[in-house]
Amino acid sequence: MPAIAPAFSAAEYARRLALTRAEMRARGLDALFCEDPSNMAWLTGYDGWSFYVHQGVLVTHDADPFWWGRRMDAEGAKRTAWLSDDRLRSYNDDFVQAVDRHPMQDLAALLRELGLARAAIGVELDNYYYSARAHLTLAHELPEAHLSDATALVNRLRAVKSDEELVFMRRAAKISERIQDVAYEKIEPGLPKNLLAAEIMSEALKGYEEDGEQIWGDYAAIVPMLPSGPDSAAPHLTWDGRPFQKDEATFFELSGCYRRYHAPFCRTVWLGKPPQEILDAASAVAEGIEEGLEAGRAGARASDVARALYSALHRAGLQKEGRCGYAIGLSYPPDWGERTISLRLSDDTVLEPGMTFHFMPALWTEAWGLEITETIVIRDDGPAECLCNRPRELFVKD
Amino acid sequence: MPAIAPAFSAAEYARRLALTRAEMRARGLDALFCEDPSNMAWLTGYDGWSFYVHQGVLVTHDADPFWWGRRMDAEGAKRTAWLSDDRLRSYNDDFVQAVDRHPMQDLAALLRELGLARAAIGVELDNYYYSARAHLTLAHELPEAHLSDATALVNRLRAVKSDEELVFMRRAAKISERIQDVAYEKIEPGLPKNLLAAEIMSEALKGYEEDGEQIWGDYAAIVPMLPSGPDSAAPHLTWDGRPFQKDEATFFELSGCYRRYHAPFCRTVWLGKPPQEILDAASAVAEGIEEGLEAGRAGARASDVARALYSALHRAGLQKEGRCGYAIGLSYPPDWGERTISLRLSDDTVLEPGMTFHFMPALWTEAWGLEITETIVIRDDGPAECLCNRPRELFVKD
Repeated sequence: MPAIAPAFSAAEYARRLALTRAEMRARGLDALFCEDPSNMAWLTGYDGWSFYVHQGVLVTHDADPFWWGRRMDAEGAKRTAWLSDDRLRSYNDDFVQAVDRHPMQDLAALLRELGLARAAIGVELDNYYYSARAHLTLAHELPEAHLSDATALVNRLRAVKSDEELVFMRRAAKISERIQDVAYEKIEPGLPKNLLAAEIMSEALKGYEEDGEQIWGDYAAIVPMLPSGPDSAAPHLTWDGRPFQKDEATFFELSGCYRRYHAPFCRTVWLGKPPQEILDAASAVAEGIEEGLEAGRAGARASDVARALYSALHRAGLQKEGRCGYAIGLSYPPDWGERTISLRLSDDTVLEPGMTFHFMPALWTEAWGLEITETIVIRDDGPAECLCNRPRELFVKD
Repeated sequence: MPAIAPAFSAAEYARRLALTRAEMRARGLDALFCEDPSNMAWLTGYDGWSFYVHQGVLVTHDADPFWWGRRMDAEGAKRTAWLSDDRLRSYNDDFVQAVDRHPMQDLAALLRELGLARAAIGVELDNYYYSARAHLTLAHELPEAHLSDATALVNRLRAVKSDEELVFMRRAAKISERIQDVAYEKIEPGLPKNLLAAEIMSEALKGYEEDGEQIWGDYAAIVPMLPSGPDSAAPHLTWDGRPFQKDEATFFELSGCYRRYHAPFCRTVWLGKPPQEILDAASAVAEGIEEGLEAGRAGARASDVARALYSALHRAGLQKEGRCGYAIGLSYPPDWGERTISLRLSDDTVLEPGMTFHFMPALWTEAWGLEITETIVIRDDGPAECLCNRPRELFVKD
C-alpha cells in the first residue's frame, strides 16, 4: 500500500509555525503544549483517532516541534506528520488509563530534558482532552515552571484559511451538497430515522470524483442531526428508530468532511403541505442570509453579519437571539467549530479574507424547527461567498 | 412523532443510584459531579451529542440528581432522562465558549443554592470534558468546598451489567456480527478504503429485526479502524482513499452499538494466499482465546485471563505484552472502553458475573497485524461467554 501523502505543503506548515511562534513571542511563552487534536493536526499534519489518550504537540522557538503521545501512536505520527523521527517522543503503555501514574509525568520529563523546567509554558486549560488531572500533574511535576492559559491561541490562528485549506473546504462543501441531496431524496413518511442516517453517513464517506481524482470522504466531527417536529427544540438529540411523519419539518444539520476539514450545511424538509407560517419564516431567513452575506465583507465585524440577519428577521416579525454562526474548518470530535469567533452582536472581531464560518440562522417554535444555513468564506472584495450551492428555501416533499 | 421511550426501567436507574450513593458514602462525599457523558447517561438516561459544552449530573444523598447543562440541551434532557423537570438546571447561551465567563460559575451558583458551598464534592479529574479550567473555576468559586478526585467512581460501578443491560449488549453484538460480515463480503483488491468504511457505517446504523421488533443501530463511540499491511503498526489511523491490495492483511476493529452499548468485535482478512506465519499466529490466538475464556470465570482475576492467553501465545513462540482487553459497555466518543479494569498481568480485579470485556489479543509484525477478538461476559458458572458468534480464525479471500 503506498504511503500516505502529506495533507499540505512544507511552506504551509512553515507558515503555521511562524504564526504560532510570533504569538508565543507576543505572550512571552518559551513553549506551547497543544493537546487539542485539531491544533496538533494543523501544526504537524498528525491525524489519528488517538485523542482518547493524552498526547500533544510541543512548540518551542529554536527547533521543530515535538509530537508526544502513546508509543503505538508514534507509528501513526511517523506516517502522517511532517516531523522527522527524532521529534517523535512517546510513553509506554503502562501509563494508559493507569491509576498509579500519569502520562503528564512523562511529558514533564521531556520538558526537563529540554531545559524547560523553569520556562513559561502555555497550556490549553479549557480544551477537551487536557483534563484537570493532566494539568495538576504537570504543575506538580514542574513546580518552577510558569504554566499559563493558552486556550485557543492556535485556534485563533486557524481562523484565516490559506488557499491550500480552501481547496479542502470546497471539497468538503461538495460532499455536504451531496449528503443534503440524499437526505431530501430518501426522506419519506414511515422511513425510520436510523435508515436515513445510514444513507447520509454512507454518502458522506463515498466522496466524489473531481477532474479524474477520487475525493474520499472523511468522518465528520459530529454525527448527523435530524430532529423532527417539536423535537427540534432539542437539537442535539441523535437519531433513533422512529419513523418520519407526514406534516412535520425535519432539519438536517450535516457536514461533509475532507481530510478533517468541514463545511456544515443545513436544510429543512417538510413532508406534506407546509403551513404558511414556516414558508414565511423560510423566506425571511433567506433574505436574512442574503443581507448577512452582503455585510460579511473584509473589514466589517462579526457582529455586522449577525446584525444584518437579525434586522431582516425582525422586519418579518421573528425574534432571534444568541449567536448565528461560528468559525469553522479543521476539526475532530466532539465539535466541528473552531471555538473562537462567533457571529453574534457582542463579537467585534474584524473579518479578514479567508475566514470561514458556519452562518447558521436557526428558528424554533413549539411545532417546528427551521435551519437553512451556509458555510461562508470572507473574500478580498465583495460579499461573503457560500461554499455550497443549493436553493435557499424550505424543501417540501408532498 | 411519539415520545422517546426511556432506555431502562425505573428499578434499574434506582439500582444505579443506590450503588453510587453507597460508594459516595464510603468515600465521605456529600455530592458527586459527573461530566462524563457515559456516567450521565448511566445515572439519568440522558442521551445527546451535547458533550462539546460543559454539562453534568449532580448526585446528592437526599433527593433526585440534577441534570445541569446548556439551556437548549435541557430540552433533550426532558425527552431522555427520567428526572422531573424541576431537576433540570441550565445555563444561558452567553456562557458557551465565552472568554469572559465560564459555565462552572453557574454550576457553583447551583451548589451554593443547595447548601453545598462547604461540602465534600467528588469531581472527575481525569475525564474527557472536565477541563483544567472547569476545575480551576469551580475551585475558585467554592473556596470552602472540599473538591476531591472521583475519577472512575461511577465507571467502576458500571462494570457489572444488569440483565437489562445485557439485552442491549447482545443487540450490539448482533450488529457487530453483521458489520464484520459486510466487511468480509465487500473487501477486494482495488476497492478504496473509504468505500468499505461507508458500507460498514451504513450497515451499523441499519440494525436488524428481532422477534418482529426493529432494532435500530446507533453510532459507535469510535469510527471503524481498518489498517492494512505494515500500517497495522499504527492502529489508530483512520481510513483514506487508498485501495486494498492483494497479499495483505487488513484487520477490522469495529463495534455495533445499540442505544450507546457496544460489543467490539475484530476479525482480520487476508486477500490472496496467506503466508503460513500468519495462519499459525491465528491458530495460536484462537487457542489463547479459548484458554482465556476458560480462565474467565467468576471469582478468578482479570490477570488470569491475560496469563492464560499469553501462555498459549508463548507456547507458539509469540511474544505479547501490554493489556489484552478492557471493560466495555455504555459509551460516547472518543472511547468505547469504560477505562477501569484491564485484562493485564498487573490487574488483580476479581471477576464477577455480568462483567463485560473486549478481550482483544492483537499481534503486530513488520508485515502484518492480526486482531481476532471477542466481547465476553462473565457468567455465574463456567467459562466466559462470547456475545458474537463467528469463526475464530483468519478470514481469507483468495
